[in-house]
Amino acid sequence: MTMMQAAVLRGIRQLAIEERPVPEPAPGEVLVQINAVGVCGSDVHYYQHGRIGDFVVERPMVLGHESGGVIVGVGAGVDASRVGQRVSVEPGVPDLTCSECLAGRYNLCPSMRFHATPPIDGSLAEYVAVHESFAHPVPDSISDDAAALLEPLSVGVWANLKGHVSAGSRVLITGAGPIGLVATQCARAFGATEIVVSDVNPHRLKLAADLGATATVNVAETPLREAGFEPTVLLECSGHPAATADGLRTLARAGRAVLVGMGEDLPLPLTHIQSREIEVTGTFRYANTWPTAIALAASGRVDVDSIVTGHFALAESEAALLAGERDPLAVKSVINPQR
Amino acid sequence: MTMMQAAVLRGIRQLAIEERPVPEPAPGEVLVQINAVGVCGSDVHYYQHGRIGDFVVERPMVLGHESGGVIVGVGAGVDASRVGQRVSVEPGVPDLTCSECLAGRYNLCPSMRFHATPPIDGSLAEYVAVHESFAHPVPDSISDDAAALLEPLSVGVWANLKGHVSAGSRVLITGAGPIGLVATQCARAFGATEIVVSDVNPHRLKLAADLGATATVNVAETPLREAGFEPTVLLECSGHPAATADGLRTLARAGRAVLVGMGEDLPLPLTHIQSREIEVTGTFRYANTWPTAIALAASGRVDVDSIVTGHFALAESEAALLAGERDPLAVKSVINPQR
Amino acid sequence: MTMMQAAVLRGIRQLAIEERPVPEPAPGEVLVQINAVGVCGSDVHYYQHGRIGDFVVERPMVLGHESGGVIVGVGAGVDASRVGQRVSVEPGVPDLTCSECLAGRYNLCPSMRFHATPPIDGSLAEYVAVHESFAHPVPDSISDDAAALLEPLSVGVWANLKGHVSAGSRVLITGAGPIGLVATQCARAFGATEIVVSDVNPHRLKLAADLGATATVNVAETPLREAGFEPTVLLECSGHPAATADGLRTLARAGRAVLVGMGEDLPLPLTHIQSREIEVTGTFRYANTWPTAIALAASGRVDVDSIVTGHFALAESEAALLAGERDPLAVKSVINPQR
Amino acid sequence: MTMMQAAVLRGIRQLAIEERPVPEPAPGEVLVQINAVGVCGSDVHYYQHGRIGDFVVERPMVLGHESGGVIVGVGAGVDASRVGQRVSVEPGVPDLTCSECLAGRYNLCPSMRFHATPPIDGSLAEYVAVHESFAHPVPDSISDDAAALLEPLSVGVWANLKGHVSAGSRVLITGAGPIGLVATQCARAFGATEIVVSDVNPHRLKLAADLGATATVNVAETPLREAGFEPTVLLECSGHPAATADGLRTLARAGRAVLVGMGEDLPLPLTHIQSREIEVTGTFRYANTWPTAIALAASGRVDVDSIVTGHFALAESEAALLAGERDPLAVKSVINPQR
Repeated sequence: MTMMQAAVLRGIRQLAIEERPVPEPAPGEVLVQINAVGVCGSDVHYYQHGRIGDFVVERPMVLGHESGGVIVGVGAGVDASRVGQRVSVEPGVPDLTCSECLAGRYNLCPSMRFHATPPIDGSLAEYVAVHESFAHPVPDSISDDAAALLEPLSVGVWANLKGHVSAGSRVLITGAGPIGLVATQCARAFGATEIVVSDVNPHRLKLAADLGATATVNVAETPLREAGFEPTVLLECSGHPAATADGLRTLARAGRAVLVGMGEDLPLPLTHIQSREIEVTGTFRYANTWPTAIALAASGRVDVDSIVTGHFALAESEAALLAGERDPLAVKSVINPQR
Repeated sequence: MTMMQAAVLRGIRQLAIEERPVPEPAPGEVLVQINAVGVCGSDVHYYQHGRIGDFVVERPMVLGHESGGVIVGVGAGVDASRVGQRVSVEPGVPDLTCSECLAGRYNLCPSMRFHATPPIDGSLAEYVAVHESFAHPVPDSISDDAAALLEPLSVGVWANLKGHVSAGSRVLITGAGPIGLVATQCARAFGATEIVVSDVNPHRLKLAADLGATATVNVAETPLREAGFEPTVLLECSGHPAATADGLRTLARAGRAVLVGMGEDLPLPLTHIQSREIEVTGTFRYANTWPTAIALAASGRVDVDSIVTGHFALAESEAALLAGERDPLAVKSVINPQR
Repeated sequence: MTMMQAAVLRGIRQLAIEERPVPEPAPGEVLVQINAVGVCGSDVHYYQHGRIGDFVVERPMVLGHESGGVIVGVGAGVDASRVGQRVSVEPGVPDLTCSECLAGRYNLCPSMRFHATPPIDGSLAEYVAVHESFAHPVPDSISDDAAALLEPLSVGVWANLKGHVSAGSRVLITGAGPIGLVATQCARAFGATEIVVSDVNPHRLKLAADLGATATVNVAETPLREAGFEPTVLLECSGHPAATADGLRTLARAGRAVLVGMGEDLPLPLTHIQSREIEVTGTFRYANTWPTAIALAASGRVDVDSIVTGHFALAESEAALLAGERDPLAVKSVINPQR
Repeated sequence: MTMMQAAVLRGIRQLAIEERPVPEPAPGEVLVQINAVGVCGSDVHYYQHGRIGDFVVERPMVLGHESGGVIVGVGAGVDASRVGQRVSVEPGVPDLTCSECLAGRYNLCPSMRFHATPPIDGSLAEYVAVHESFAHPVPDSISDDAAALLEPLSVGVWANLKGHVSAGSRVLITGAGPIGLVATQCARAFGATEIVVSDVNPHRLKLAADLGATATVNVAETPLREAGFEPTVLLECSGHPAATADGLRTLARAGRAVLVGMGEDLPLPLTHIQSREIEVTGTFRYANTWPTAIALAASGRVDVDSIVTGHFALAESEAALLAGERDPLAVKSVINPQR
């Protein structure tokens, strides 16, 4: 049995690089040698707290769900010519046959198995076996890092789809973390002509402006409602109840609010929602976004490499998880397991 | 100048039947002799409190916005052959040219003039002048009372449209007041195959069952979440924050919640909204609903006469407004000004 | 090996009742004892012509794709408690993982395997093995025949969904064959308030009127355009190019036309389509319709038993296929293999 | 009475520059001094043939419906501070109150009065009076010519809206005339990542490539079906039945076809439409497109100035109309009446 290295969360703030057997691809699966893994806020949250809401890490779990690499083996029934193909890994595999899956909403599948969501192991390892249909081929115009970052890009694509962003939309994005920044890039790609991004971190606001925001608001200095912007779409990417409530109150009539950031329950301004007939929804991962994400990245309409602020070897995974705590300029860390 | 009687709100719990000049139809208007006016909760609320939210009755105001009658005169530019036509009055006239109106969302017109919304006079009078396009002809299969009640029926139609209710929908309606009851009838007409209505009033739940509910829940006895129903659509018609929160938590994945009942701000269960990608919206009046309401009533698919529990003369308007306070069996009072 | 009877098409107008092994349910499959099979126009067409368009019967093939029965066995991985469950068989199983399937449009899956579409055997037999997710449980309020006829009902549901039929729709249905008749029932269930059905067969028009049509037009006597009806939706169920062209020309502005009937290429009245911004589409089978079809049939909103005009034993399958040729009053034949 | 010059079509190929009174703005209208008028194919068609379909020029008619300028006067009821405002003229004013207008589809208003559609005069003149809500203010970042060309840009916006073009769409545009070229620019702004334009004119294909096409096909050399492109959206801008039929046959499953180009009735490939569930629709002008068109032009997402190939004085209007006949390189002529 061949062995590989994997980054395993063993407890709160306990990350170990362990030897594990290289997985054997099951029928219908491919074996992917992982070249890049993005560190997501949820990885950091599991590392810091051992849980996210009802999802509790009760046994050692490999972290990581933003990954890309190259196919090095195939299971039974898979076209062997895929060996050598560069791929981006979609990290959740649904049961494909429940009513949600059949209706095209596979992200809502109650039997979803998703990387690095307990108890499912993630992809922060040298190899991972995945369903052949969820290892998406990418062209050479997409870098290894970008192949991994198609996952957060998918979150941004999904937010814009849910927000019905289209040509001429005026979009408010609250929160300029990695998700807010990819949502910004996507909003521009979807045709938004005004994109205002709010945050309290001037560095991130600067980055937002570089990536397509037409204006930024530092809400530590200027309340949103004084910014004089009446968006048609709110993409809430901060998880702060106050940002959400303030953002909702700025929305134009018939506007749409998409709550992407996770957080506590929040007060809904009922009269405002009613008198303006605003629609509010939340996102849970994404469905059918890879083709769009690939097309946007391959055509240069978005540039996910631009949000990467640090590269790490697999052995440095803990440092990658701590980058956000240690460095206010850090946005997105990428781990390259083959380095 | 010919005079007429009108029911004028002069202060809190001060309703006077006054003489007013019969209005002269302006160019593009018709003069309608009013045969029936439904009493709405908002009329009662203005009578009891002198205000609804930011809308304050500062000057004497004619109440009433659910009305029907017969055209007895026309203003300049209106086809005189309309005299004699039985009509249902749509009580809000927008400016027709703002961006909301041009986009077909005229209910969101910031310049809307709406009957019995301060400072605009309503239609609880012997005559009213209205824009010719907002006096909708009705066939003889629609009674005088029903012509008036196409207004609350429109609220029910709009709620079902916003809820995307269609064949096979499972609909939860919280609140079995007049709006909940017309929403129930509409849900059936829209094809819903399961319609559960909740309230604390057994009489109203009985009426809901008669009008199309496939099941009812007395939430004074059984919490909604124990009712074992997972609706695809919530039509919230009670205005109670607890009913709303409970109703939201029952919704199926990808469900829709339409907040029709007015009330206080309410806590939004964020995790539930996100993990099930539920869409929440509110309604503000309605747009383009009269053709549907007329078709439903004329074809017998809904029966709005069935919710009428009391008839009153114009001189008895105050008794009509008090019916709800005095009689727990009262649902919808209708005033017939020509009686 | 246990044997069963099956109705096998061996050539044009050559139907044989043959012994075949009872199928062994594969992993993930259930074995269904078939109690009722509806005869579809496509079965008749294969019998008469040996082909439908590019689909050619090159080897003996079991006919039938409208079927229901009871589960009598399960394959590996299937919950054994399903044995004894009454089910309706959805006759097409897609690959579940192509982009069409993942997007919820599994009817467009290029790898679809569909009963009685060459070279896939159908279900006109005593037993059939099907994917567990495509054997839909039905309540006792749905008869054995109705369980089979949920398949054509699904065609009617899909047509109405594609037509965006809703409360107050005015629907024109051209062709009162089995599909036109279920489309009529569905249109009513979806809330249409005017439903006009056209055909040249007075008997079928009478049946349409009994099943929910608000008016009928015998186009052998009255051209459609003289019928004075301006529908918002056309459901074309005849396959006749002239009916289609005439139907399209009656459509109201922003109307929708759904071409369900199969036939030759047809002239599209471009100026009419453009000046009224009509949308035209066609249907190919259906997707995700069984839950709705079950809800409509179980709630009594549609009555598919009412279109059955003849019952046959499996040995009488050829007579069932010939019923339409022999009897102008025949609408839908049902074969009961266990009889 | 002050007089002005106007370009009047008096008969086939008879264009006269005549003196007409400067119009007096009616109540609710503004008077616009026209600075630029684009020449549309319909102007040329009226000049060449005296009619388009059922629209026949029976009396002398001012041509022109693509225009922009500056407000120099206002009618009763209009805010006088608008004098001096630079505007783009939306050339059709609907009745605002019919069911189509109230539903937001004012382009389908049967009482529409549209510039240079007989018998309504157009805007190829020094001044024109228009409804205040249809004279759209434009920022200084939009040139005089571009203000006029927001009209064809609106056609492109509408085509993309009808085509549901969004991020990652693959769009085929048949015909690289002015409309095809603005549709190309819009497709890019709406997020399309593959945009293939076909035509027989190499010069126009070159221009298409410059304006955002990712590939071009000269269908005089390569049949569309051999181009190896499977679009999700077809925007048919040529009016050629063969291009339409070929384009339809390339469409991906669930694709949408928008027929913008005017032409003869055409054969619809029924089997293809059905088996792929393609949706086909046509466009008639546009509704609610100016805000989007302004946002796209002002933000630089589209550049309509780039399609202008010739400038003319009002006295040279006939030369502008003949530019297309005389010069194969001509794309869009603009007349500047104040020159």
